[in-house]
Amino acid sequence: MISAAVMPQPHRPIELRTFERPVLEPGAVLLKTLGSEVCGTDTHLAKGQLSGVPYPIIPGHVSVGVIDEIGPGAAPLDVDGRPVEVGQVVTFLDVYGTCGRCWYCTVGHATTRCPYRKVYGITLSADDGLLGGWAQYIHLRAGVHIVPLPENLDWRAFLAAGCGMPTALHAVTLAEIDFGDTVVVQGAGPVGLSAAALAQLRGAGRVIVIGGPEVRLAAARTFGADTTIDIASTTEAERLEAIRDLTGGRGADITIEATGVPAAVPEGMRLTRDAGRYVVVGQYTDTGSATFNPHLDLNRKHLDVRGCWGSDAGHVYRSVRVMSRYADQFPWTELISAEYDLAHAQAALDDVAAQRVVKALIVP
Amino acid sequence: MISAAVMPQPHRPIELRTFERPVLEPGAVLLKTLGSEVCGTDTHLAKGQLSGVPYPIIPGHVSVGVIDEIGPGAAPLDVDGRPVEVGQVVTFLDVYGTCGRCWYCTVGHATTRCPYRKVYGITLSADDGLLGGWAQYIHLRAGVHIVPLPENLDWRAFLAAGCGMPTALHAVTLAEIDFGDTVVVQGAGPVGLSAAALAQLRGAGRVIVIGGPEVRLAAARTFGADTTIDIASTTEAERLEAIRDLTGGRGADITIEATGVPAAVPEGMRLTRDAGRYVVVGQYTDTGSATFNPHLDLNRKHLDVRGCWGSDAGHVYRSVRVMSRYADQFPWTELISAEYDLAHAQAALDDVAAQRVVKALIVP
Amino acid sequence: MISAAVMPQPHRPIELRTFERPVLEPGAVLLKTLGSEVCGTDTHLAKGQLSGVPYPIIPGHVSVGVIDEIGPGAAPLDVDGRPVEVGQVVTFLDVYGTCGRCWYCTVGHATTRCPYRKVYGITLSADDGLLGGWAQYIHLRAGVHIVPLPENLDWRAFLAAGCGMPTALHAVTLAEIDFGDTVVVQGAGPVGLSAAALAQLRGAGRVIVIGGPEVRLAAARTFGADTTIDIASTTEAERLEAIRDLTGGRGADITIEATGVPAAVPEGMRLTRDAGRYVVVGQYTDTGSATFNPHLDLNRKHLDVRGCWGSDAGHVYRSVRVMSRYADQFPWTELISAEYDLAHAQAALDDVAAQRVVKALIVP
Amino acid sequence: MISAAVMPQPHRPIELRTFERPVLEPGAVLLKTLGSEVCGTDTHLAKGQLSGVPYPIIPGHVSVGVIDEIGPGAAPLDVDGRPVEVGQVVTFLDVYGTCGRCWYCTVGHATTRCPYRKVYGITLSADDGLLGGWAQYIHLRAGVHIVPLPENLDWRAFLAAGCGMPTALHAVTLAEIDFGDTVVVQGAGPVGLSAAALAQLRGAGRVIVIGGPEVRLAAARTFGADTTIDIASTTEAERLEAIRDLTGGRGADITIEATGVPAAVPEGMRLTRDAGRYVVVGQYTDTGSATFNPHLDLNRKHLDVRGCWGSDAGHVYRSVRVMSRYADQFPWTELISAEYDLAHAQAALDDVAAQRVVKALIVP
Repeated sequence: MISAAVMPQPHRPIELRTFERPVLEPGAVLLKTLGSEVCGTDTHLAKGQLSGVPYPIIPGHVSVGVIDEIGPGAAPLDVDGRPVEVGQVVTFLDVYGTCGRCWYCTVGHATTRCPYRKVYGITLSADDGLLGGWAQYIHLRAGVHIVPLPENLDWRAFLAAGCGMPTALHAVTLAEIDFGDTVVVQGAGPVGLSAAALAQLRGAGRVIVIGGPEVRLAAARTFGADTTIDIASTTEAERLEAIRDLTGGRGADITIEATGVPAAVPEGMRLTRDAGRYVVVGQYTDTGSATFNPHLDLNRKHLDVRGCWGSDAGHVYRSVRVMSRYADQFPWTELISAEYDLAHAQAALDDVAAQRVVKALIVP
Repeated sequence: MISAAVMPQPHRPIELRTFERPVLEPGAVLLKTLGSEVCGTDTHLAKGQLSGVPYPIIPGHVSVGVIDEIGPGAAPLDVDGRPVEVGQVVTFLDVYGTCGRCWYCTVGHATTRCPYRKVYGITLSADDGLLGGWAQYIHLRAGVHIVPLPENLDWRAFLAAGCGMPTALHAVTLAEIDFGDTVVVQGAGPVGLSAAALAQLRGAGRVIVIGGPEVRLAAARTFGADTTIDIASTTEAERLEAIRDLTGGRGADITIEATGVPAAVPEGMRLTRDAGRYVVVGQYTDTGSATFNPHLDLNRKHLDVRGCWGSDAGHVYRSVRVMSRYADQFPWTELISAEYDLAHAQAALDDVAAQRVVKALIVP
Repeated sequence: MISAAVMPQPHRPIELRTFERPVLEPGAVLLKTLGSEVCGTDTHLAKGQLSGVPYPIIPGHVSVGVIDEIGPGAAPLDVDGRPVEVGQVVTFLDVYGTCGRCWYCTVGHATTRCPYRKVYGITLSADDGLLGGWAQYIHLRAGVHIVPLPENLDWRAFLAAGCGMPTALHAVTLAEIDFGDTVVVQGAGPVGLSAAALAQLRGAGRVIVIGGPEVRLAAARTFGADTTIDIASTTEAERLEAIRDLTGGRGADITIEATGVPAAVPEGMRLTRDAGRYVVVGQYTDTGSATFNPHLDLNRKHLDVRGCWGSDAGHVYRSVRVMSRYADQFPWTELISAEYDLAHAQAALDDVAAQRVVKALIVP
Repeated sequence: MISAAVMPQPHRPIELRTFERPVLEPGAVLLKTLGSEVCGTDTHLAKGQLSGVPYPIIPGHVSVGVIDEIGPGAAPLDVDGRPVEVGQVVTFLDVYGTCGRCWYCTVGHATTRCPYRKVYGITLSADDGLLGGWAQYIHLRAGVHIVPLPENLDWRAFLAAGCGMPTALHAVTLAEIDFGDTVVVQGAGPVGLSAAALAQLRGAGRVIVIGGPEVRLAAARTFGADTTIDIASTTEAERLEAIRDLTGGRGADITIEATGVPAAVPEGMRLTRDAGRYVVVGQYTDTGSATFNPHLDLNRKHLDVRGCWGSDAGHVYRSVRVMSRYADQFPWTELISAEYDLAHAQAALDDVAAQRVVKALIVP
């Protein structure tokens, strides 16, 4: 029997349930879980803030495991086109079922807006099997995008960066940072920290992180931020002045929003220089409206604003390659404050919700 | 003596004044004016809604004239690099003095955000000479970008399109319309009409213009709009539904805002499909704020929003070439409702402000 | 019984064969063929110039038909996401089986380089069924991308443009033509003619077609080319001089190669101005090498050269929308010189190979 | 009196000459030279391989100095818009006189193809003054783009990177490296080394340098190259196989050519994967032709090839910011093999031509 931590309903405690070992279909893979991330999305799930979630679910959308069994027939291919093998350490794209045939996939080339996507740990039900990471084993259905971890990439480091890394990689790619640019990152959570790291791997000339609390700002500095600004002890006007002072009065060349707070968006427009670029990636749930001045904040500024939603197999693949190549430069594993077994998944969730930990892992 | 229509101060009537014929410096040109546009900006100037205007001014920033005299020494070169000649019919970029040396010119490559720009008819004073188009002659200082009109391009057609054309050309370029895209244009004024025309010269599959009054919507249809929607007789919800109905529920691939109304901006975000693009070019003056939902309207939509400010010599040059090549397709001169001599410049301004005319020209 | 024209081997005459009406699998569609294109690729197939062709094949990769039958279960969705219906007039992307899972599909986002593509009429065997257009019926397997033709788009017009249209649309998209650009098209065959038409739907300021024979150049002028240059009666030096004369000495802003002749490629580099763009789309088969000067022709020119391979579902979808919207502007059906029934497919092939016709259709 | 090393004619020894201290015009600056680069271009100049050079010249196009005197009137502004001051350590863009008014500057936005450019140390004559870096003082005419060096950027490090750095920065920018990409650099000279460094500041997943001799390959590894391949001991087929082995058979995502050898260009096309990108920056002089197969090497590959010419003020500005920010990561000063005073400028030239040194500086 296989144990898994199940979220039965919003506002109800996590339960430990047991599952039969699944019979694999052709093309499927059974992973023995090494670890799975606990992230802000899981706290949203616990509060019922996402729509279309088929509770009960097994949370955990970014996970690493060892291939324990491969379905009948030919082994599925990893993203590089190589057949996977039992014993490999792999991760996978949580998004499953992107169709490749709908208008968004074929005409719009908007990989993250395909309406047929299903997400492990979020929109796949525990009633349908081991389809989330907080479990001893994970059932990777045929068609899941599998990415092996290189030997020199510690799986704990990969999970410490977590889903924030491919999300940030998508955002920083959209940001089109030019060499020497001043980059402001709004937010010092997982996405913001990864964005601050990745900005340096785009040759940013200065990286400024605005956020809090201090423990996260300290982490930002560890990850190379040149300047951090505490959101709690400054006003918007002070932050604007601080950025202007650091940029000869112009403002940031590039700003990346990773806060989840609607008011951060008009502030970010103002922090950015004329003809600069602003990527909004942190407004993951609906937490209300914001007010801006279309003349001053957008049109006269000649500002480029890009909403950035989700990530695809390419973002995960590239995240693995970048983390592997620059592992020495960024101490991801230091972000892990605590590891929890399945029986303590509720505690993990509570600690993350209360920001008592920087990063929590479920290690079954 | 040379006559010119002078705007002495905001909220004061236009006066006819006389000027000495200027002594040209090397590289300068004296134009005998054929005509000059009256546009919405001139009504803003009359109301004092722009800052940094050195009244008294001679309005008129888009003009066509015949080269009457060339300053001492070598004739200046037009944008194509050919020396200009007396007798040529030319237009010129109203923006003068873009420096080529500041940060925006050399590093930012943001041609329209150079802080050293001076604009004929707007930020150059009548105290300094014939530096606006509502005059019998216009003094083109050394360094002004001169663009000859090809023989097959009627100067009245060029002025009928007016400054709306290079502005729209800039916006439509930023819009990166793909073949077959559905393009919504918000606004049926000069910029909107030009945008609707230019969208067809990008291969748009459907062009929808939202605006009013009916005379302008009729003009939009004459310029090829497939569908027009009257802003006065519809609600935002109805417009949103109309666009969705025309696009299989997705929304516009591309939306271009040319209204000047802040509330149009969040509406435009909603009219655009997921992963679409929205160009905001109509918020030329500060007329207040707008409210939007960063999650729904920007981030989850994966929306690309681009503020578009001003135009440069390239936009004017390309406007001339496009209008010349496709002159038969778009009946620009039909837009001209009335022509006024210098003595009736105030009447022209009043008629434009009251929207009694579609397009007015000053013909000295 | 269903008749089809079969190409049994290279260098062997086309045969008429009969097939059983197929039993459709879920998601499949049976098309009653209205018509199918005869194109240069078919002459390459007849000569065995393509590798990986599983003879015998039923040629015909661009076809239009009426949906005659739909496989069991839910009707497949067209590219717009609507269920197809019996009686609809549709076309389909000849490329079938793009995987959506390989590295090129997920990481490289190079839609036309997926190694798992199979092409109707080219790389699918007649031994496996009605998998080409020169047949009374075509079996669209589950997963084929189906695009309905709008009512105002004559299916003969669509076939007259043929596979040259999505190919040219891909190339012209890559060309990133700016408003008013001078565009040179090398080649006056189907791809070149479509490129010349589409350049005008990108706002080109001048379109120049270099090619032959005169009947094709006349067609190019009918499709809006401002200038045509006969390849047979000019030298490379004369063509270079002609283009320079038309462009103030600079050269073409954009050049699009659609010739199939290796020597055209270095010539095209020279026809293009410094910092211009050159798209190479016509080198479909290996016909030898070409020599160029990397300093003069590429590096000092700051030239952008883009190879363009194949087309995807988006290109076909956009072709249909563009042809439908601008049908009045471009007289595609005039290109059709002759229509042949299945029994005369060999004659069609011979006439195309001998360039006795501009465009030939198979109409079963 | 001021000493300078003068190249009187090609194939004639460098001479030491004396100049009067210049009387500065308004906007000019006199620099007291700290050091000036000796680069491959200087050896081309000595051999008369560049056209349009007004011998005698003072070589030295990348230099650093201390501002010794400022012309009458307002101090000129640096690229950031701040007035320069006596005592500042600055560098400057060697290209002077880019016009800002010609077609390439205003319409083509091709900053490095403006035909009015004059280059310090190359196309400005010693007869006109101290217009090159191998001199005790350098006369920066009004309009030269001045970039101060930040305190934490050692001027020797800046000169050690030399003109190869802004050239490489331009090329790597054009290369549009995506996170995790495999980047092949052809050539291990100054441009190649800078490109290898900068590729890591774009998040390359693997950097491979092909070149020689071993001392340069060792430098490449010091600068972070993951793999180096000796050009002298391998065949093209072996190099192609090596790159394929490192990339799962696909080839490099991005290749950057910095060799000066024509045959490197077709090889680089083959080293790059389908739908990859190839930037050619090393073909600075005409050293002959190359042969390629347009079908195999360009069209079917769907390859993007970009010639990259020269650099502009933005590239120098960004180079300074990047070198300052990442100074600890790349040991530029280690590249300097030897420093020479003005009297030994000929020896410097000889040592560079013979590749006896990696990087030589003139230190007056």
